Amino acid sequence: MTANNTAYAELMAFQRETEALAQVAGRLGWDQETMMPRGAAEQRAEEMSAMEGVLHARRTDPRLAEWLAQAEAPDAVAEANLRHIRRSYARQVKVPGALAQELARVTSRAQGIWADARAKDDVAAFLPVLAEVIRLRREEAACLAGGGDLYDALIDDYEPGATAASLGAMFDAMRPRLVALRAAVLGAAHQPARLEGHFGQEAQMRMARDLAAAFGYDWARGRLDLAVHPFSSGSGDDARITTRVVESDPFNCFYSTIHEVGHACYELGIDPDYRLTPLGSGVSMGVHESQSRIYENQLGRGRAFTGWMFGQMQGRFDAFGIADADAFYGAVNRVQSGFIRTEADEVHYNLHVMMRFDLERALIRGDLAVADLEAAWNDRFRADFGVEVPRASLGMLQDVHWSCGLFGYFPTYSLGNVYAGCLNLALRRAVPDLDDHLARGDARPATDWLRENLQRHGGLYEPREVVRRACGFEPSEAPLLDYLEGKFTALYRL
Amino acid sequence: MTANNTAYAELMAFQRETEALAQVAGRLGWDQETMMPRGAAEQRAEEMSAMEGVLHARRTDPRLAEWLAQAEAPDAVAEANLRHIRRSYARQVKVPGALAQELARVTSRAQGIWADARAKDDVAAFLPVLAEVIRLRREEAACLAGGGDLYDALIDDYEPGATAASLGAMFDAMRPRLVALRAAVLGAAHQPARLEGHFGQEAQMRMARDLAAAFGYDWARGRLDLAVHPFSSGSGDDARITTRVVESDPFNCFYSTIHEVGHACYELGIDPDYRLTPLGSGVSMGVHESQSRIYENQLGRGRAFTGWMFGQMQGRFDAFGIADADAFYGAVNRVQSGFIRTEADEVHYNLHVMMRFDLERALIRGDLAVADLEAAWNDRFRADFGVEVPRASLGMLQDVHWSCGLFGYFPTYSLGNVYAGCLNLALRRAVPDLDDHLARGDARPATDWLRENLQRHGGLYEPREVVRRACGFEPSEAPLLDYLEGKFTALYRL
Repeated sequence: MTANNTAYAELMAFQRETEALAQVAGRLGWDQETMMPRGAAEQRAEEMSAMEGVLHARRTDPRLAEWLAQAEAPDAVAEANLRHIRRSYARQVKVPGALAQELARVTSRAQGIWADARAKDDVAAFLPVLAEVIRLRREEAACLAGGGDLYDALIDDYEPGATAASLGAMFDAMRPRLVALRAAVLGAAHQPARLEGHFGQEAQMRMARDLAAAFGYDWARGRLDLAVHPFSSGSGDDARITTRVVESDPFNCFYSTIHEVGHACYELGIDPDYRLTPLGSGVSMGVHESQSRIYENQLGRGRAFTGWMFGQMQGRFDAFGIADADAFYGAVNRVQSGFIRTEADEVHYNLHVMMRFDLERALIRGDLAVADLEAAWNDRFRADFGVEVPRASLGMLQDVHWSCGLFGYFPTYSLGNVYAGCLNLALRRAVPDLDDHLARGDARPATDWLRENLQRHGGLYEPREVVRRACGFEPSEAPLLDYLEGKFTALYRL
Repeated sequence: MTANNTAYAELMAFQRETEALAQVAGRLGWDQETMMPRGAAEQRAEEMSAMEGVLHARRTDPRLAEWLAQAEAPDAVAEANLRHIRRSYARQVKVPGALAQELARVTSRAQGIWADARAKDDVAAFLPVLAEVIRLRREEAACLAGGGDLYDALIDDYEPGATAASLGAMFDAMRPRLVALRAAVLGAAHQPARLEGHFGQEAQMRMARDLAAAFGYDWARGRLDLAVHPFSSGSGDDARITTRVVESDPFNCFYSTIHEVGHACYELGIDPDYRLTPLGSGVSMGVHESQSRIYENQLGRGRAFTGWMFGQMQGRFDAFGIADADAFYGAVNRVQSGFIRTEADEVHYNLHVMMRFDLERALIRGDLAVADLEAAWNDRFRADFGVEVPRASLGMLQDVHWSCGLFGYFPTYSLGNVYAGCLNLALRRAVPDLDDHLARGDARPATDWLRENLQRHGGLYEPREVVRRACGFEPSEAPLLDYLEGKFTALYRL
């Protein structure tokens, strides 16, 4: 072995332990949201902080610089590994340790203040710490940007290769068609029925398990639990999902489950050779969201799969006021104006994201003062959705992201939808009889195609590149918009 | 602050993070036995190994030596902290890193081989790796003993202050009285009834929760789950317990639960000021076992508490063939010869431990060859219990301990019983109306007394010292033997 290959081998052995420790930290987070006794919160904060300290020390270990200087990549996989480690190390060393610690401290505090403020609809209580978070994130972005755009530097954490300009262009192309579609749908004479009834927790959870199985979720390498805010967690051979149960609305549980199954199948579908390496987890937030959204929407909310779901629900629940499978498909896909992004239908969802994108970009640029954020939010909401925000918990306090310092994250949700639109087009071409399978409650052929064409690559290619390769065409917003117009024009008989 | 106090403060800050990381590693172990998907085992081994690597590096960090050389203890708590850290550091640096790694590797392998061998009753498959484990533990003991007794050096890991001589003397004093009691009981004309029936899992788990609550287990800082081999896990504000369910024998679930509640109450009862310090967990295996055993036996298997249990069971389960509370007390305490230590009654239990103590001491001394172990086990079992061991899974393959390298651990079980006997005597004197509470299903006055007099001290005092302080007399085997003779003489109408 040459010295340069030795450096690569040593680097990868070190990195492998770091990745294993990151999995441990992630599982600790899972435990906190699903299993932890409530009285353990304070001690848990110390445990998490100790784990973060260990990870930070490893990610800024000076030996990384030496290894990176000497290591030679014998092949494309090694090249990709080095690219990821270089990017991570460069990011870590650009930000002074004191600033990183301060950010960790302030965002941890800010989340608690945000939760209280949301519970009391008390914007004023949240603004001082939000201002502090933004000040620190801007400072951090300045370290990272090297004179470039601050917001771009933040986006880079979640979606390497994307910029405010590229995302802005995407939103500009989406906006007019979505606005027109929304207007048409809301004004349509035909409106689908609503689901009505009581749906017991145990029956919902049994159905959720069957839905996960329908998409090929590997129970030998995962599990399903309850959480207040559903999430997925873990990579490699341990990718767990969570859901929640609202007894008046089973779709909440079912589509949260399918969404998280999409995330988990991505992780579980990655080439086992990449386990505990930089290639062993999803490549970006946008690509991750493309998997959760195609499972949830293009597959899970399609006519074929909902037809099967309707039959399943009849055997499991008391009457719920839906006459047939077509009416059920309508109920699943009802479009209605609402205040909350996470509850938005496919037509409204990206309009919610656009609003956050514009507002947070203005905050980071310094064009919008924190003191003016609530007014800006409410004005924009009135303009886009035609209604007055009645209280801040339905407005600017609804999402946790900003309290965590997650600026530049929201647009990856829409990018995920756009990628899902592209992948759905390619998938339907490649598996022309997919709906026959979906109609029998079997979404595994979709998982198979996605795993083979996208999921298995993990971090091997850059985000946009892996989607382009899977699709065989340059990704754009057009397939998503075509799909939405086609679907909702038919459903609302426009 | 003086330089010496600065050293102490720095040492304790470092130690606190180490303790927090140890809690994380412990929780990962809990997850592995309760929650982990089965396909994640291989990856989990890497995660555990990475955590162990982090902990080992911290426990052998050269800064510890500097801090320990400079630190001054301003008070008794600091003195105890320094004593624990010094002992741990001295132990860690005496054992070469390569040997420690080899031991970790071999014992991890040995546990898998043991499990397979036990399943197939294949002693020959286990002996080579057992010989290797013993060779490495003897080598380690030689590093630790500094010319002294090897077995004593191993005991010191689990029970500081105890020696083969002190434990041997204890067993010598116990043996004749236990042997005589066993003979009398097995030959008695009156034999208690057996429980018979089917006891559903859900009803057993509900009852297990109520039993834990009866002892004052703090659900805000713990939880109960199922595991193949029940255990408790965690310190400070997160001490979880597990149990198992056998639908023909609810006592398995109930007394496993109460046993683990004893361990967990000890952890949860420690002074909150000691959290994440060397004083923040149980001081030794023997003292820990004294808590689990007094909860399980002297309290949980007593006439008063079983009277309450009998009433509870009548409301929850179908007929189980027991006429009244006295007969139920007899059924709970039935004495019968059996092969398995963990299923042994109070009369037989310590006889099982004595056998292991003698055999493992001979193995470590080199007086007994691994090749002769099975014959030695079976001969001794025939002599002590009067029956032939029919297969190795009921004999020398029944316990996991030796495959893990746990030599010197077994005697702490009996020491725990002896301490439980002493504590029960002192507790009954201090709380004369305890049985009135127990008869109403309220064991909290016992937990209160134990917390105040023993549990809260955590690692402040040496093991024997904390028991002596709680009892107000020098601990000995006499109270346990008096208790056993009194209880079983009455129960068997001798």
